[in-house]
Amino acid sequence: MADTTDEFGADTTETKSLWLDDVELEIVRGRVPMVYVEAVPVRVDEVGQLTHVGLLLRAMPDDTISYAIISGRVMWGETVRQALMRHLDKDLGPSAFPRLPVAPTPFTIAEYMPDPTKTGFHDPRQHAVSLAYIVPIEGDCQPSEDALDFAWVTNVEAAGLAVSGEMTGGQDRIVRRALGYAGRLH
Amino acid sequence: MADTTDEFGADTTETKSLWLDDVELEIVRGRVPMVYVEAVPVRVDEVGQLTHVGLLLRAMPDDTISYAIISGRVMWGETVRQALMRHLDKDLGPSAFPRLPVAPTPFTIAEYMPDPTKTGFHDPRQHAVSLAYIVPIEGDCQPSEDALDFAWVTNVEAAGLAVSGEMTGGQDRIVRRALGYAGRLH
Amino acid sequence: MADTTDEFGADTTETKSLWLDDVELEIVRGRVPMVYVEAVPVRVDEVGQLTHVGLLLRAMPDDTISYAIISGRVMWGETVRQALMRHLDKDLGPSAFPRLPVAPTPFTIAEYMPDPTKTGFHDPRQHAVSLAYIVPIEGDCQPSEDALDFAWVTNVEAAGLAVSGEMTGGQDRIVRRALGYAGRLH
Amino acid sequence: MADTTDEFGADTTETKSLWLDDVELEIVRGRVPMVYVEAVPVRVDEVGQLTHVGLLLRAMPDDTISYAIISGRVMWGETVRQALMRHLDKDLGPSAFPRLPVAPTPFTIAEYMPDPTKTGFHDPRQHAVSLAYIVPIEGDCQPSEDALDFAWVTNVEAAGLAVSGEMTGGQDRIVRRALGYAGRLH
Repeated sequence: MADTTDEFGADTTETKSLWLDDVELEIVRGRVPMVYVEAVPVRVDEVGQLTHVGLLLRAMPDDTISYAIISGRVMWGETVRQALMRHLDKDLGPSAFPRLPVAPTPFTIAEYMPDPTKTGFHDPRQHAVSLAYIVPIEGDCQPSEDALDFAWVTNVEAAGLAVSGEMTGGQDRIVRRALGYAGRLH
Repeated sequence: MADTTDEFGADTTETKSLWLDDVELEIVRGRVPMVYVEAVPVRVDEVGQLTHVGLLLRAMPDDTISYAIISGRVMWGETVRQALMRHLDKDLGPSAFPRLPVAPTPFTIAEYMPDPTKTGFHDPRQHAVSLAYIVPIEGDCQPSEDALDFAWVTNVEAAGLAVSGEMTGGQDRIVRRALGYAGRLH
Repeated sequence: MADTTDEFGADTTETKSLWLDDVELEIVRGRVPMVYVEAVPVRVDEVGQLTHVGLLLRAMPDDTISYAIISGRVMWGETVRQALMRHLDKDLGPSAFPRLPVAPTPFTIAEYMPDPTKTGFHDPRQHAVSLAYIVPIEGDCQPSEDALDFAWVTNVEAAGLAVSGEMTGGQDRIVRRALGYAGRLH
Repeated sequence: MADTTDEFGADTTETKSLWLDDVELEIVRGRVPMVYVEAVPVRVDEVGQLTHVGLLLRAMPDDTISYAIISGRVMWGETVRQALMRHLDKDLGPSAFPRLPVAPTPFTIAEYMPDPTKTGFHDPRQHAVSLAYIVPIEGDCQPSEDALDFAWVTNVEAAGLAVSGEMTGGQDRIVRRALGYAGRLH
């Protein structure tokens, strides 16, 4: 699981003192599970039915390319909705106009662990419990410099891409669960 | 449970022959459960959180006034999404811009019966199984002539109104379930 | 979609008069959508995680063999829970001890239509709106004479069988949605 | 929000070194949100419908008495299901036979903060994101010495108790959301 937002890059000095520097984060990550949010950006038609899934094309630490959904940490004192909006804005730009769901309940959860055999979700850095949401996007996406590209793929393509191993950490399973939840998994 | 849409008024001759006249409907209603959809119209804030519930103010058959949510039958050959859009358009007008949820799963179901003691949901005319959805409204509502008025009330007021018995058939319970589902029931 | 329960076989004379004979049912089926319930029987491990899916092996009208989940009509005056228990008892026998979920909300809905292109769920006889539930089974299953056999398959096998076209009407999609909902779709 | 399980009492020396001592926990709690699980224990009838809610009667730090649901931290490396089972076993004893739901998705989430005005959920010690589950109990409950008593109350009493302010931190709202989710909030 790659954080799709560089959470420290844009911090002001003030919030830096409240939150964590990289060294502290490293220590804390070995002691308690981190709270994460993940968002599957989607396009819907005029009756609200999912037609496309939005994917970030990213350079991974091992120099391979991978598709990813929006993913990032919830900060201390930040609500889940605030964290979702922050990561969506950072990754999709200010003109995306994401529509967060009315219910605070995620459509699924994912438990990322350093041991890849434990849950099937893998993050070498940490144990993270991720709350995943489907988020309709009404505007235009301008991915940040972190992401190489952003693409809308059909629900059929999304299921196919996911299967072919081009997503890491298990995010392909979150995309398939999202398609199933939306009644669009064939 | 009052249908909030006069389902026959706007039918063309062609669809009338396909669907049911009032006499046939009366007979069928005594034989099988009807499929209904219900929508709780809501306003949400910039992070998607429910702030207001929309209620129709209606004259009831017994000349009392009652608050109601959107409610109506699913026609033969019509999808649940099409039925929701049809009833929302009829009751809230063409400028409401309702945003149907991505998932086809209702947030709750209600089982209306002629016997009011069976499930707590009561419809003297029929046994109806209703799929209920929370629907954010982005535009302006112009209720049809069927409804006397339409009002946005805060989530706190919605829970209060519901308790005070100004909704019939058990719709007040659907509103409270909606508030609970949206994390806004205090 | 085959009804997995012969709904008239066990009716007493009294209930027969209240419900529908075959001719009436034929007529009503062409006028309004029918309310159906469907159950995906599952085995769970000691921490509640899905391990196996139960499938009925059935002879189809066209003499082929097909896997099926539990499926049947909701009768007039019957609650959804009562209908689920009736169909589970009929199909899995009196020692199955099914555990219906606490929430009345289905995990998904399926809209079966005579036109197979409309929703992807197909029933040549009728338009049916089906509420689907995942039901853990604690006891032993003794399928009725209607079903040739009953088999527990692993969640991995369930996804595979489903894909290979051995389920009809679109029930394979309900099984995959169930696996996704339960966090067991790989 | 009181942890209903003394999470350190039963730890072996080995796991103690892996997990956190009280001083470390205090530090980490000020830096990142903690992951919590909460369980609303319920009794269900023969068709799976909620009839009673189980509540722990506890002595609070300020010497008052309060009703509480099961609540506790997810440890590093522990799955959400394992954490739920650990806290249920600790609080309800080894003969409770809790039935965890099939889906990993909580029925709601609660965000506890030191600032009581932020979300309405209050924990003076920490920011905790809690995943809440409804858990049918099939056996007998023998609450640990931490809890003074354990009581089954009807769904109607549960809603009433909750309103009367005898639960702290906002857990009364979780009980009401649970009743709404289960279709049992009147």
